[in-house]
Amino acid sequence: MYYIGIDVGGTAIKGGIVDENGVVIIKDSVTTDAGQSSDDNVRDIAALVKKLLTASGTDENQIAALGMGVPGTVDPDDYRIFYTCNILFRDYDFVKEFGKYYSFPVCIGNDADCAVIGEAVFGKMKGVKNAVIVTLGTGVGTGTLVNGTLVSGFRGAGGEGGHTVIRMGGEKCGCGRRGCWEAYASATALIRDTKRAIEKHPESLLRKFAEKEGKVSGRTAFDAYEAGDAAAKRLISRYVRYVGEGLVNIGNYIRPEIIFIGGGISNAGDFFIRKLQSYVTRYSYGGRRNPYIKVMKATLGNDAGIIGAAALPVLKGAGRKIR
Amino acid sequence: MYYIGIDVGGTAIKGGIVDENGVVIIKDSVTTDAGQSSDDNVRDIAALVKKLLTASGTDENQIAALGMGVPGTVDPDDYRIFYTCNILFRDYDFVKEFGKYYSFPVCIGNDADCAVIGEAVFGKMKGVKNAVIVTLGTGVGTGTLVNGTLVSGFRGAGGEGGHTVIRMGGEKCGCGRRGCWEAYASATALIRDTKRAIEKHPESLLRKFAEKEGKVSGRTAFDAYEAGDAAAKRLISRYVRYVGEGLVNIGNYIRPEIIFIGGGISNAGDFFIRKLQSYVTRYSYGGRRNPYIKVMKATLGNDAGIIGAAALPVLKGAGRKIR
Repeated sequence: MYYIGIDVGGTAIKGGIVDENGVVIIKDSVTTDAGQSSDDNVRDIAALVKKLLTASGTDENQIAALGMGVPGTVDPDDYRIFYTCNILFRDYDFVKEFGKYYSFPVCIGNDADCAVIGEAVFGKMKGVKNAVIVTLGTGVGTGTLVNGTLVSGFRGAGGEGGHTVIRMGGEKCGCGRRGCWEAYASATALIRDTKRAIEKHPESLLRKFAEKEGKVSGRTAFDAYEAGDAAAKRLISRYVRYVGEGLVNIGNYIRPEIIFIGGGISNAGDFFIRKLQSYVTRYSYGGRRNPYIKVMKATLGNDAGIIGAAALPVLKGAGRKIR
Repeated sequence: MYYIGIDVGGTAIKGGIVDENGVVIIKDSVTTDAGQSSDDNVRDIAALVKKLLTASGTDENQIAALGMGVPGTVDPDDYRIFYTCNILFRDYDFVKEFGKYYSFPVCIGNDADCAVIGEAVFGKMKGVKNAVIVTLGTGVGTGTLVNGTLVSGFRGAGGEGGHTVIRMGGEKCGCGRRGCWEAYASATALIRDTKRAIEKHPESLLRKFAEKEGKVSGRTAFDAYEAGDAAAKRLISRYVRYVGEGLVNIGNYIRPEIIFIGGGISNAGDFFIRKLQSYVTRYSYGGRRNPYIKVMKATLGNDAGIIGAAALPVLKGAGRKIR
């Protein structure tokens, strides 16, 4: 049997057929149309599924279930989509509409939640029951697994770990509060801080790397750091503290076995993950008396979104069936 | 059938027999002896149980299970006690030793975890599946229930929500970090801030109330607030923000239906709970799009420790049986 994973993103909807070992046997994508109706989105996704089945020569009866990760909130029981951003689903019964096209069971979840499920079901540390994934990208996303169960929150509205304040009265956050973890630990925040450092230290390599790339990116600070730049060293050292504080907060509150680091920034290099590990080991509550929290880079790579979505029905046992 | 609840505290071990509706039919206590051996602690607890059974005329066969709440970490599956403070249990198999005295099943959990279970099983909001209790006392404790399951963390070491940083680089905390929620929201922190306010505003009613009571306590600021003192108003307004920030953090990450406020400070009055509710409603992520989080005073009152401990085997289905 196979699983279909659908990864709904702001720019593209990616889909793939995944085997029982989490191997993607075929994948494709379609451009997200933020302006069209929910029914049209379902139609596009059904067409993407058809392409995947046809191109791989897979029969519908070989599909155990379809899992879909969306950037928003979803009812953890009947999978009604309450809200998504960048694509229109609002209080929408996707499963019912999709049932007009295909009869296999369907599961839907928040994309960060799918990411941690993907690691627990198909990743290198598969079988882990207490784990958190933290994605460091445009924002800071979190997905949390406790006792092998997803912490999706009441009516699926939990998991916004990026919007926990680590510095009261600090940097403004898009959510309306000040000092959220996301406002310090996201790639967006790192870019802001890199720009500030360039203004303050125009002689630094930070500026040279930014000029070479044509812009300040999440990589600028890391590139300059690796080249030995002093301003970049201070910048990265502070960024590690920002990310680390939030990791220790999650560690103390939830105490997972593993915290996976995902998102664009997770590609910064092993040294970055090692620094985060040191921070978490040093500052976690109870020190050596309490179990060690392992910090590691997410293991599923580029297809994490597809594999995570496909893992959702595996964890849930099945999905909601319409026909 | 009845349940026995044992609430292990730093000064006393309280015990009670609780009926199936959570009503305490008899209770008693024994002084905690921090210096004695673990086996002697078990002997004391068994003697306390005997007193409860004898005084109430209850037969051992009428006891469905015993639940015990301890200030420390416990294996969530086999109930081995890894560590407790103020009483000696270190990597200790309490259930096995207790089996020398009684044969009914035994469950053990962290005391803050028992507190939230007590609310969910026997409290006014019983049946709630997603709830957090925050105890504002000497420290800040948290107990978390997600999808009806306790978030005890890997090897029982989670639930230290008081040790999540809300102000990086802020007040020193006993755990070794700076700026923990506990360092701002505990009664201890409020007393420290009240003393500072008295120094700064010796003319305020804060000083008068402290002198009347003979010391600065967690009540001083609230008493002066109710008497209309300006310095106390500022102090309480800031304290509400401190407590509120942590509540919103938990709300955004876990999104419970209810946050219960317990501990000594929870007796400050309805106005305090109302202010916390306003703060949480105003600053929670997603505003009205996401489900409302109710903030309310813990409902179990003075016997919460005993009732919560007795509720643990109810939630867990049973306990570990030795004989």
